[in-house]
Amino acid sequence: MTEVNTTICAISTPPGVGGIATARVSGPEAITIVSKIWKGANLAKAATHTVHLGTILDSQAQPLDQAVATIYRAPKSFTGEDTIEITIHGSRYVQRELITSLINAGAKIAQPGEFTRRAFLSNKINLVEAEAIADIIASSSRAANQIAVTQLRNGFSRKLAELREQLLQLASLIELELDFSEEDVTFASRKQLIDTAKAIDTEVNRLKNSFKTGAAIKDGIPVAIAGKTNAGKSSLLNSILEDERAIVSDIHGTTRDIVEENIEIGDYLFRLMDTAGIRSTEDTIEQIGIQRSIETIRKARLILAVIDSTEPIDKEFINTLIENAEQNINNPSIIFIFNKRDISTTDESDLKSAIDALLPSSIDRHYVSLSAKHRDNIPGLLQTMTQIIDNEVNPDQSQENILITNARHLQILTEAAQSTGRLLQSLTSNISGELIAQDIRQTISILGEITGDISSQQILNNIFSRFCIGK
Amino acid sequence: MTEVNTTICAISTPPGVGGIATARVSGPEAITIVSKIWKGANLAKAATHTVHLGTILDSQAQPLDQAVATIYRAPKSFTGEDTIEITIHGSRYVQRELITSLINAGAKIAQPGEFTRRAFLSNKINLVEAEAIADIIASSSRAANQIAVTQLRNGFSRKLAELREQLLQLASLIELELDFSEEDVTFASRKQLIDTAKAIDTEVNRLKNSFKTGAAIKDGIPVAIAGKTNAGKSSLLNSILEDERAIVSDIHGTTRDIVEENIEIGDYLFRLMDTAGIRSTEDTIEQIGIQRSIETIRKARLILAVIDSTEPIDKEFINTLIENAEQNINNPSIIFIFNKRDISTTDESDLKSAIDALLPSSIDRHYVSLSAKHRDNIPGLLQTMTQIIDNEVNPDQSQENILITNARHLQILTEAAQSTGRLLQSLTSNISGELIAQDIRQTISILGEITGDISSQQILNNIFSRFCIGK
Repeated sequence: MTEVNTTICAISTPPGVGGIATARVSGPEAITIVSKIWKGANLAKAATHTVHLGTILDSQAQPLDQAVATIYRAPKSFTGEDTIEITIHGSRYVQRELITSLINAGAKIAQPGEFTRRAFLSNKINLVEAEAIADIIASSSRAANQIAVTQLRNGFSRKLAELREQLLQLASLIELELDFSEEDVTFASRKQLIDTAKAIDTEVNRLKNSFKTGAAIKDGIPVAIAGKTNAGKSSLLNSILEDERAIVSDIHGTTRDIVEENIEIGDYLFRLMDTAGIRSTEDTIEQIGIQRSIETIRKARLILAVIDSTEPIDKEFINTLIENAEQNINNPSIIFIFNKRDISTTDESDLKSAIDALLPSSIDRHYVSLSAKHRDNIPGLLQTMTQIIDNEVNPDQSQENILITNARHLQILTEAAQSTGRLLQSLTSNISGELIAQDIRQTISILGEITGDISSQQILNNIFSRFCIGK
Repeated sequence: MTEVNTTICAISTPPGVGGIATARVSGPEAITIVSKIWKGANLAKAATHTVHLGTILDSQAQPLDQAVATIYRAPKSFTGEDTIEITIHGSRYVQRELITSLINAGAKIAQPGEFTRRAFLSNKINLVEAEAIADIIASSSRAANQIAVTQLRNGFSRKLAELREQLLQLASLIELELDFSEEDVTFASRKQLIDTAKAIDTEVNRLKNSFKTGAAIKDGIPVAIAGKTNAGKSSLLNSILEDERAIVSDIHGTTRDIVEENIEIGDYLFRLMDTAGIRSTEDTIEQIGIQRSIETIRKARLILAVIDSTEPIDKEFINTLIENAEQNINNPSIIFIFNKRDISTTDESDLKSAIDALLPSSIDRHYVSLSAKHRDNIPGLLQTMTQIIDNEVNPDQSQENILITNARHLQILTEAAQSTGRLLQSLTSNISGELIAQDIRQTISILGEITGDISSQQILNNIFSRFCIGK
């Protein structure tokens, strides 16, 4: 990382060729440096938030391209420094030459995330907001984008500020107790202290536990398509994708490798994994495929269990499914799909009862009848899938639900939960007020790491190195 | 193409993920439409060329992203219409959703080149400038960019205006002659007329002929690497590229397919084509390779003739080279490369004399000694290559040399040259003034097609469909 008193530059738009491209120049010398390679309006005299047409000169002082310069004067810019955005035509040559020209004029090439890092160091944004920017850039579904936008619009930071406020309140109650401790008064407020600490602990744990759903939404929700051979798993995948992605045949054991495809359904990105059909087989490659199929069931958030509705329910398959789903720490929902409804005569409710009888009550179950081959009732299935995730994301429709998606936040919240756990224990076991106050201070300090109130150079390097150049 | 009273939108930055991306919205409803999906400063009241921070709402009216809106009010915009540029974070999702949101609010998706077409239709730019914008976006070397920038900065349009001025002057001289025709005066000005017409004809032909060089610079200058087997052609290619691109071995006839690589040297992009070594062979595949090698010699602008300087000059090879170079309409320059100088004891001047004795005077020749294997004197070769092109581009260093690069311009200039040729013939053969004036009017009209003073819908469609979306 270069120092903050340098002026940095980079192309901020996506790499490649386009109609236009934008370079960002930020730092104390931004206006001086750009003026050296600029013919047009006097940028040194330009007001903040104004736009000017001119010509950019290349590294040999020849006209490179017509350009538009946008001026942001410190502190009214993203970085908090003087910033100029130069928009030029988006050829590779012009983009490269513009950067060369800026470097010759005295700018340094920006490191990944360096503009955002400067925004953080200028106190324009906190770390959570910085991370939200990276998440918005990487987002590939509505829900993932919403989580990041909420984070950027300070939903998570506000929640952390609330927790901090509650902890400070708790600390002052404890201090009150300490002030009177020598008078050996019995405090009615100890119950109140415990209640407040419990509320804080609950919220910290809720945030911590939201990571599973948050991360799944951010990276795509893993969905295992499981079933016996020839139940129609690959047909189902193809029907959902509206594409002949997986090879479909009447031969048992056609699918061996896991076929994985991403698809956006409603607000979410799902990662559909078609797996080998589960059966006893002597074929070694198929055995490996079945083992992978089982691993997929153990890590999915949703299981599409495809049942051939022309056949009686196979208890052995259902038991294999349950056994593996129970080993899945995500506590996955299972959608039982009665396939081949176009040719089946079995009553749907009989199939349901047969399965229900086998399932432990802990398993969240749903049922959908369809024909994968004729693409019949695929929308019904997709709706069921998105509703299950909707309920996880927003169990209480009445309030904004904050999900965490960032492994760094998870790590800090895990430490904070340990700290609030200790705090609760201390409060209930009549430990001295001094020690309790220390637990509270520690929790505040741990939570402060999330927004960067407390941060090390190492942590900042980790966060910003994951950004793209130019942001 | 949608109509001009619609409001269009598109992402104008390169496709893909980046720090930021920009959508352009242009048309009479631009400000109204963007205001519908915008939370922030009142855009309807914003002054032209100002920048505003706000939030973009997605198609469900939820916050999509923080954004910057830049306002350009008609006619002070690229298109001449009200235009808003919206800069958002460069995720695929945010970019796609922004366009969806704009379309829901009433914008139409822009066709390729539609913004530039509108700029042309608003008389903000002429066709030559519009084409220059496409060329700047496609440019991949300094020289290609310079040609396009000169074209955008009106060098070519100014030259055409000069020609038009001269033609109009010629027409007035002819009309003067017509006015006095009944008095049967002998005109001293007939010689002056012919001189003016000759100057115009020369300039039109010079512009027409500049296409060969212009197009080569724009698309990359084709360079044939030719020689006998084992002269070191592939080693030379690898040395120039500083890469082990072509397979090198001691076995005669290693290279069969043409190995083509682009490389920027100095201001130019060269397309290096390594070819099969020329020799008599019974190997059918090698024979096809040699035939292709000969075709490459016949279409290159530069021939690197690689000579093994440890062997005597092979007259048969030199003659094959001359014979095919003479069939090349580009009149290519040949650089004779005395390779293997590290192990050769033959005097360089003896090699030169032996080749000079065989070459017809019409062939432009250069000599470079080097060792491809040891990368010795490769810079000397690169300098010779760029100097040859420099001389073609700018034979007269004292004045700006306009090169045409566009096949449409070539076609029109070819017609114009025919017209000026007829004009010269008419002037020298005492044809009536009325017919001569008609020739002049025709030439003016033909040249007018270049800048779009005269243009058809069909021509406009052809030109703008080659643009990228968003420009």
